Amino acid sequence: MVSAVRRIDVELAAAAEDRSYPILIAPGLIDGHAELERWVGGREVFVISNETIAPLYLDRVIAAFGDRRIDTLILPDGESHKHLGSLEHIFDALLTKRHSRATTLVALGGGVVGDMTGFAAACYQRGVGFIQIPTTLLAQVDSSIGGKTAVNHPRGKNMIGAFHQPRGVLIDTDVLTTLPARELAAGLAEVVKYGCIRDRDFFAWLEREMPALLDRDPEALAVAIQRSCEIKAEVVGADEREAGLRAILNFGHTFGHAIETHTGYRSWLHGEAVAAGMVLAAELSVRLGSLEASEAGRIRGLLAAAGLPTQPPDDLDPDTFLTHMAVDKKVVDGRQRLILLAGLGNAEVRDDVPREHIIATLVARGVAV
Amino acid sequence: MVSAVRRIDVELAAAAEDRSYPILIAPGLIDGHAELERWVGGREVFVISNETIAPLYLDRVIAAFGDRRIDTLILPDGESHKHLGSLEHIFDALLTKRHSRATTLVALGGGVVGDMTGFAAACYQRGVGFIQIPTTLLAQVDSSIGGKTAVNHPRGKNMIGAFHQPRGVLIDTDVLTTLPARELAAGLAEVVKYGCIRDRDFFAWLEREMPALLDRDPEALAVAIQRSCEIKAEVVGADEREAGLRAILNFGHTFGHAIETHTGYRSWLHGEAVAAGMVLAAELSVRLGSLEASEAGRIRGLLAAAGLPTQPPDDLDPDTFLTHMAVDKKVVDGRQRLILLAGLGNAEVRDDVPREHIIATLVARGVAV
Repeated sequence: MVSAVRRIDVELAAAAEDRSYPILIAPGLIDGHAELERWVGGREVFVISNETIAPLYLDRVIAAFGDRRIDTLILPDGESHKHLGSLEHIFDALLTKRHSRATTLVALGGGVVGDMTGFAAACYQRGVGFIQIPTTLLAQVDSSIGGKTAVNHPRGKNMIGAFHQPRGVLIDTDVLTTLPARELAAGLAEVVKYGCIRDRDFFAWLEREMPALLDRDPEALAVAIQRSCEIKAEVVGADEREAGLRAILNFGHTFGHAIETHTGYRSWLHGEAVAAGMVLAAELSVRLGSLEASEAGRIRGLLAAAGLPTQPPDDLDPDTFLTHMAVDKKVVDGRQRLILLAGLGNAEVRDDVPREHIIATLVARGVAV
Repeated sequence: MVSAVRRIDVELAAAAEDRSYPILIAPGLIDGHAELERWVGGREVFVISNETIAPLYLDRVIAAFGDRRIDTLILPDGESHKHLGSLEHIFDALLTKRHSRATTLVALGGGVVGDMTGFAAACYQRGVGFIQIPTTLLAQVDSSIGGKTAVNHPRGKNMIGAFHQPRGVLIDTDVLTTLPARELAAGLAEVVKYGCIRDRDFFAWLEREMPALLDRDPEALAVAIQRSCEIKAEVVGADEREAGLRAILNFGHTFGHAIETHTGYRSWLHGEAVAAGMVLAAELSVRLGSLEASEAGRIRGLLAAAGLPTQPPDDLDPDTFLTHMAVDKKVVDGRQRLILLAGLGNAEVRDDVPREHIIATLVARGVAV
């Protein structure tokens, strides 16, 4: 079956330095698309990938760029390599191979490869073009869209980076067939998030189609990715630099961040921590009277159906939990800013949540006092 | 005598991400100005300086920012420290002192400090504000204006960087009293350049006022700095990303770059190499019939009056010279792009200059065959 290519145009505010760009979604896109011609300015292409993805897809991506001069760099896989040292490797390779200002960087991999490649593109000779080819569901529905690029610093995640929009995003739904089940589920956590914060009907569709999604049905995945990208593009387009609306994309993330900090970013995947975090944020919303208990139950049920954790780790006490939450970048003037729900499909930013309500929510969800 | 504060507003094209900003010029500005209130967003300030300048001016700058939380970082002096490693020191210090996204970086020093501070500000937490307080004439009339920030890579100067505009530039003409004479002259080379490329009357004024400038007359220096900044602001405002007009700022720089490469960026200062480069570019313009020989003579005479070299190093043969010129970033599609003069005060971009004319110009100026 040949599927149609789904297309979303990310429209940025007029003042944005980089222009709007398209996201294309279809099976087999990794082998190329006519749009690539417009995304690559010159004759030079530099593909950055990692040790896990390169053996699977690098040859096909190289073929997709035709007879251009193509150089490649394979980085080690994993978040622990997302630092300035890896960035230096990229610059060394670009300069050794004499890539000019007209070069185009291509990120072939998950969020780590995408974040580093985008940041390298932002800085190389003060800015060159880049293309995202995300190979995890999480990167396809989240990190490849919105122009946030960065590397980590030992003292904080994503502390050094830039806003730099790609020329285009190429999402091949076929590559998800090689994605481990646990990473597929972690990506689905962000998909569920979009339903929670912005689209009640999409949430209901996810409830019906979760078995098909877990079965990697290409059509169901394409629909889920498209709607997720649309919502993210809509939010980012309205607020590129995170002044206001964009904060709602952090639903579940402040609680999740505390779980990731506690577990040292090792045992829990980001999407897993966000899943447990969304359950807590929903239940806190119920406690504050802005969400029905039945709706929080549906969120918890859908995440459980996706095989995601709905409970924080049991060795984390409320005080430590709150301390970890406060270190999150979402603290403004010392007040904890939280994204809660005013009904399913409708997120709101709150900075007036009493500490005792947060503690009560944690305790009710099994966090030991 | 209390001088009035001279003010230039750098207006950027509508699409630019960072807004327009003012340049203030006056003696004593290092002790503060009411405008600073608007340039500093929050309560946090981080001043970056070097070992030469900090003992002279750091205390006064700290006092100028009042009762805010102020942290400082003193870097070693010199172009050899303008690399990613120094940038990491800046990020380490910012995070150790827990500076937030609301912090403002302040560059107190010459072009090296300004370029690194600006690039750090572009990347820290994906972009924070910064202020330029340039302490060399070269930085005051050139590198602090225009938003180009960068660090060097072993394989090339300014290869890693960003376009990031300061919130404002504070030029204290008094700090030039502590500038070594050789560096003052190197800065005057760029001042002469502005007359050559854009303003014949300013060039004539410089011919009259050169003795006063070398004598560090505050009023003469203020006029020279103001007119230089105006011309640079005008050119940069029309072409922030170096698509066209901005290239004329490179008058003398392609020849100069070859001299700097040949001498390993050690024995010649940048301004000195540009001075000898401008003489060559002017004499090549005469050879091509677009400039009067008498005008080239005036350029050479004015640079000599400033105590600048007007002759390339004598151990550099024409072939090596041309090879070094070709490595410059100004090569487009393999054709050497040169900035020449079509009359004094009127620069033009040429990419059709026959190689033999360049060689003849070099030989006539004493380059040994």
